[in-house]
Amino acid sequence: MTDTTIASVRGTSPRTGEPVGDPVPVSTAEEVDAAARAAERAFPVWSALPAAERAQALEAAADALDAALTELVALADAETALGEPRLTGEVARTSGQLRLFAEVLRDGGYVQAVLTPADPSTARPDLRRMRQAMGPVAVFSASNFPFAFSVAGGDTASALAAGCPVVVKAHEGHPATSVAVARIVAGALREAGAPEGVLNLVSGFEAGGALVNHPAIKAVGFTGSYAGGRALFDLCAARPEPIPFYGELGSVNPVVVLPGAAAERATELAEGYAGSLTLGTGQFCTNPGLLFVPEGGPLVDLVATAVAGKSTGGMLTSRMRDGYEARVAVLGEVATLEVLASGAASDDSFAVAPRVWKLPLKAFADQLETLGEECFGPAGLVITYPDVESLVKVLAELPGSLTGSVHADAAAGDAPAAEQVAAALRHRVGRMIYNGWPTGVAVCWAMHHGGPWPSTTSSQYTSVGATAIDRWLVPVAYQDWPDELLPPELQDANPLGIPRRVG
Amino acid sequence: MTDTTIASVRGTSPRTGEPVGDPVPVSTAEEVDAAARAAERAFPVWSALPAAERAQALEAAADALDAALTELVALADAETALGEPRLTGEVARTSGQLRLFAEVLRDGGYVQAVLTPADPSTARPDLRRMRQAMGPVAVFSASNFPFAFSVAGGDTASALAAGCPVVVKAHEGHPATSVAVARIVAGALREAGAPEGVLNLVSGFEAGGALVNHPAIKAVGFTGSYAGGRALFDLCAARPEPIPFYGELGSVNPVVVLPGAAAERATELAEGYAGSLTLGTGQFCTNPGLLFVPEGGPLVDLVATAVAGKSTGGMLTSRMRDGYEARVAVLGEVATLEVLASGAASDDSFAVAPRVWKLPLKAFADQLETLGEECFGPAGLVITYPDVESLVKVLAELPGSLTGSVHADAAAGDAPAAEQVAAALRHRVGRMIYNGWPTGVAVCWAMHHGGPWPSTTSSQYTSVGATAIDRWLVPVAYQDWPDELLPPELQDANPLGIPRRVG
Repeated sequence: MTDTTIASVRGTSPRTGEPVGDPVPVSTAEEVDAAARAAERAFPVWSALPAAERAQALEAAADALDAALTELVALADAETALGEPRLTGEVARTSGQLRLFAEVLRDGGYVQAVLTPADPSTARPDLRRMRQAMGPVAVFSASNFPFAFSVAGGDTASALAAGCPVVVKAHEGHPATSVAVARIVAGALREAGAPEGVLNLVSGFEAGGALVNHPAIKAVGFTGSYAGGRALFDLCAARPEPIPFYGELGSVNPVVVLPGAAAERATELAEGYAGSLTLGTGQFCTNPGLLFVPEGGPLVDLVATAVAGKSTGGMLTSRMRDGYEARVAVLGEVATLEVLASGAASDDSFAVAPRVWKLPLKAFADQLETLGEECFGPAGLVITYPDVESLVKVLAELPGSLTGSVHADAAAGDAPAAEQVAAALRHRVGRMIYNGWPTGVAVCWAMHHGGPWPSTTSSQYTSVGATAIDRWLVPVAYQDWPDELLPPELQDANPLGIPRRVG
Repeated sequence: MTDTTIASVRGTSPRTGEPVGDPVPVSTAEEVDAAARAAERAFPVWSALPAAERAQALEAAADALDAALTELVALADAETALGEPRLTGEVARTSGQLRLFAEVLRDGGYVQAVLTPADPSTARPDLRRMRQAMGPVAVFSASNFPFAFSVAGGDTASALAAGCPVVVKAHEGHPATSVAVARIVAGALREAGAPEGVLNLVSGFEAGGALVNHPAIKAVGFTGSYAGGRALFDLCAARPEPIPFYGELGSVNPVVVLPGAAAERATELAEGYAGSLTLGTGQFCTNPGLLFVPEGGPLVDLVATAVAGKSTGGMLTSRMRDGYEARVAVLGEVATLEVLASGAASDDSFAVAPRVWKLPLKAFADQLETLGEECFGPAGLVITYPDVESLVKVLAELPGSLTGSVHADAAAGDAPAAEQVAAALRHRVGRMIYNGWPTGVAVCWAMHHGGPWPSTTSSQYTSVGATAIDRWLVPVAYQDWPDELLPPELQDANPLGIPRRVG
């Protein structure tokens, strides 16, 4: 990883295993410093722009991405093999995210303005509080969304919206796509009046470490592996000035099928599970890694049939394929695991096959530390439980996940059990899904894409949805400040018409 | 500090230097574990209580503190020598904080409920997001507010309000007071229906380390020194499961006097500064450590006279007195510092005298690392600046502080300079004060008592005011969840009538 003779990063086709796309030079220490300093210089200008002007710049970036759709999809498909339909949708999701944050800025509620009037009877001064940009931000791209969680993805969009310039560490899985997106978005921002240096790109493993240790960087956003995330979290915490590290790491996403649902719609559930497990070759942080089903009944066999009928394609990189195969081999050695089904792999160079094991709840609970670890890819455990009481005890001990799902049939008497399961999952997951599958994360105001450790390093925050902007904001209070010197968000007349609390 | 032969902690009178109050046993490792486990058992019960019931319990605790006023003030005055008037006011502030958080709970806005309706046209599900309690919390008491930042202070009140049981590590400066407050508040909470274990107290240096490393503890609140805070922050970050550490450490609180104000009201400013610097023997985290005044004019000499006329009393502990004297000795060795004034010390055993030095802006800027460090106690630097342009460059380089203050006279032409100073301070301090002094922190909705590193370890949060509850909350989203199984905060009918965003 740190071979200093490698002077460039180049993509590899998951279909052929051959190099693809233009090579991208690895950033030198001087280039990382220059990028962080450029972001630092841009910060006072970008953060001081009226929110409405930042909103216009984000919309210009969104328009530029949409206009480059054909070029971008071709580049990304060569490097990721995710296919044109998926990548076309992902560009739209990415430009949509930029537009959502423009909406967040115009709404103005994101500053959480609070005005407490002076109270002469207690000598209390006039106090007005709002949130403002934190400083320059580093963003680590993810492999599995070359647009939506990459150079101009949710981390970048929310940080730019907050007023924070960004330095992106490109993912080595799609280097040419990253360069193209950076060029297009930085150009659009510049034309829309943003200062030079508001979006910067660096490449290479060592650039990442240098970036999080750079004194100009004030926060880090990350989506990736547990090992990589923990290492960067530790670097952030050990700095002379520690900075927040918002990392989304691994998640096993428990799914519970309650007895009534299992009895009423076993076939539909088996198909739904196999579809969610294998979607995108299982390369989603919300992949359903643990399926809890009642003992007995036809569901387990139906799951076996459904998964055996699935074929999955190439993983994004050879490293990820190797990681999947290694984890599958580890699980293959666990005596209590019985292979329930194996699907097929396409003939892509990095292809892997789906694999599902089954085991009883008791055996799972006894090996929670080993079996509760994420397997990134289309692999899952089907855990059979004897009764809901035993189940909820184990659910309450699960490692933190981004999501938890419950399949229930109220008419078949599942409601009390659903309530018990919800009480157990509520403190173990960030999003609770009823009669649905965890893959698919809607970009909207109420989304929460976060969860307890180890699914994220900061369970207070989300990386998807309008409140993702919270990560890049810090409060400031003005005491007895003259109205004409206050930011417009806090002036008496509320000239921006934003939601505020007074009291 | 870690002498294991010390089996108890006992207070010392700052007036006489003699032991005072009952000795309090140091907590054993088993006792720390039992306290954390008690909090863990209380968590599901306390966090699941309706917010209105938690509000009633907080009000019962407030009433119980007020009812014990005489006993509490006597205990605390013996251990801290802060005097009856100040301590009487502080008990009222403490019960007032508990009542403010009851108001926060009834208001309901603290859960930040957001409802995004389903959109069949894009297959978007129904999503509803709110915030809920994080888990059991450890609180480290401060020395300088034996009630308001101690066992039942702002950290504890906000955590309990959020639904988080608390284990307090008592401050060794007021052990008997801590035991009495814990007994009174825990008893009142229990009588009001709170589960056993919702408030627990541990004592001793080693208990603190064991507490932050305990797996049941999910977050830590701290007010204290830079060294202690950094050590505990590092422990929290190094845990197998890292947890947030909300530490308020040191702050130099720059105060700028602009030329017009200096010309128009020099005497008033000199008196105001001397009063703020020496209030409570300077033992406030908002103590004005740096005063920037224009070169020339009578203000510097008036400051010298005002400070020379002040006498200060005992510091809270012998360790704090020794720390003050050591820092004063270090500053005494700095060649560019000229002693401007020394005040008098009372004949209390732990008394210290106020001391102020002066130096030019250029010399200060050249030694920013040394001179920008907090001196806890009644000591300050008076820094003379040649012009506002030079001043703002240095202000932008200051270490992070809780507060920054500007004294301006708009009629005398200070407004443009005030705007420049505000722009420079805005990203270096958490609260900006106009024509006032930083000591005095109003407990209200709009207060922000936080700031950039090293004034706090988490600049996104405040430890005073209604939004202090934010530290103990994590979001959870419900997707397509049946209305009758949702928490009342998210149900269609909004039965609690709380503020929510829909869209």
